[in-house]
Amino acid sequence: MSDAIDNRMRRAGDEITATLDALLAPAPGARGRVIEAMRYSALSGGKRLRPYLTLASAALFDVERQGALRAGAAVEMIHCYSLIHDDLPAMDDSDMRRGRPSVHKAFDEATAILAGDGLLTQAFEVLAHPDTAEDPAIRLELIAGLSVASGTAGMVGGQMIDIAAENEVLDLAAITELQKLKTGALIEFSCRAGAILGRADETSRLALTNYAVNIGLAFQIADDLLDVEGTKEQLGKPVGQDTDMDKATFVKLLGLEGARNKAGSLIEEACDGLAPFGPKAGDLMDVARFIVERRS
Amino acid sequence: MSDAIDNRMRRAGDEITATLDALLAPAPGARGRVIEAMRYSALSGGKRLRPYLTLASAALFDVERQGALRAGAAVEMIHCYSLIHDDLPAMDDSDMRRGRPSVHKAFDEATAILAGDGLLTQAFEVLAHPDTAEDPAIRLELIAGLSVASGTAGMVGGQMIDIAAENEVLDLAAITELQKLKTGALIEFSCRAGAILGRADETSRLALTNYAVNIGLAFQIADDLLDVEGTKEQLGKPVGQDTDMDKATFVKLLGLEGARNKAGSLIEEACDGLAPFGPKAGDLMDVARFIVERRS
Repeated sequence: MSDAIDNRMRRAGDEITATLDALLAPAPGARGRVIEAMRYSALSGGKRLRPYLTLASAALFDVERQGALRAGAAVEMIHCYSLIHDDLPAMDDSDMRRGRPSVHKAFDEATAILAGDGLLTQAFEVLAHPDTAEDPAIRLELIAGLSVASGTAGMVGGQMIDIAAENEVLDLAAITELQKLKTGALIEFSCRAGAILGRADETSRLALTNYAVNIGLAFQIADDLLDVEGTKEQLGKPVGQDTDMDKATFVKLLGLEGARNKAGSLIEEACDGLAPFGPKAGDLMDVARFIVERRS
Repeated sequence: MSDAIDNRMRRAGDEITATLDALLAPAPGARGRVIEAMRYSALSGGKRLRPYLTLASAALFDVERQGALRAGAAVEMIHCYSLIHDDLPAMDDSDMRRGRPSVHKAFDEATAILAGDGLLTQAFEVLAHPDTAEDPAIRLELIAGLSVASGTAGMVGGQMIDIAAENEVLDLAAITELQKLKTGALIEFSCRAGAILGRADETSRLALTNYAVNIGLAFQIADDLLDVEGTKEQLGKPVGQDTDMDKATFVKLLGLEGARNKAGSLIEEACDGLAPFGPKAGDLMDVARFIVERRS
């Protein structure tokens, strides 16, 4: 733990990339094109925050590395698929992602739709495999949890609300609910996956869920802050996109200072809740702080 | 079995629709819109061929009805998602499906993309639930099988090949391979799901796989024949679409008579392989014949 959190995240990110690289094996022929697009998205880096949360949560319960890496890779596949589909012209219409052309720009729209579908599908294949966990009950709990977090009660539902909200001004309760579904549900599952793999008791699961809900919201507030304060180079995409479009954001509703304070207190609450885990939870506390201090 | 196959299929189709209706419960608020679109697609009827194959295969092994209906509903969710995404402007750009506007026309493109994503995700949620099968190993085998059949080694891969082939002329081997992935893999899984639920032995599984491969190919040939011979009213979509676009079809490569003969001999082979199951397999034989005799 002597190492800085961003170094630890980079190293874990490399492990996740290697896991994804092995899972998304290139194929010859025309079929290979969709896998190429999936690899373009999934191997392009990013912070790997969600799989890091899975790895750090799993470490609390001494889960063996391979299972945690595979569960983290499945979560990252879902995250990448959501970015590919969100970037499509009919959705957010974003040409850039992580400093380079988004998938439908680098390939084409049809390939991007299929690449998203392929990643979404493969996430469940990865979780169903015995290499993720020997115990079938654990694998099923992971699959059930990931499907709920990603579906209409989670990410897909949140994205629908987000699109519907384009023509109305949301209040704080409404954008908090939106965030909970659109990004919160998957972040929460990322933490819960570690607890599932580690057969954690109910108390530990509740503590982790509480942590995840708080950092999930803080993450979104930090995103809104970066959208106002960040530079294009840091973000790898145009800044000010959300404020330009008159979209309700936490910064708009709380003010710059208010948003910073809210994010700070959420992180404090997240870390306080981890006390029962003792020094083992230091890594998760560091991620929480990283989330609000990051510059991209 | 005294009843005609189309009547039996209609009744089973109603059961599947009722199952999907219960699984896709409407929700209030903006989130409800994506569920509405999922219901628009999944409850709109269609032949329900794939779930019927699951029910008929499951009946060979006396599987209890609820599990077979849920597995069939999961397969149909995957089928419906694939139709929604295939109809999108960036893919086949089809405005009509089953005699009414396709999802992106009845709703909008963004909602259609999300509705497809939602159905794909929920299929795995349905299979992971204990109501599908008490035995965790059975549920995991269903999930693994469905994800492979739907992903880059199956449906998604086949769709990618299909798109890439728009500018080249495929030979018989190539369109057979394309069909195997694009439609064959899911039809094969539909039959295999019954065997998985029924803990069938290897011999029975092989017999069913052989049946499924043959009817899958026959189904595609019958589709190509309908595209040439059918009327718009029968199909619920414009006819002659494939031949207009200079696309390689089985009819083009084999001729009308050759295609009819090929479909007939595949069905014969499919039925012959079911002999070991005895009279119980009558239903599956009837479906096989229905596939080539249908007029829509």
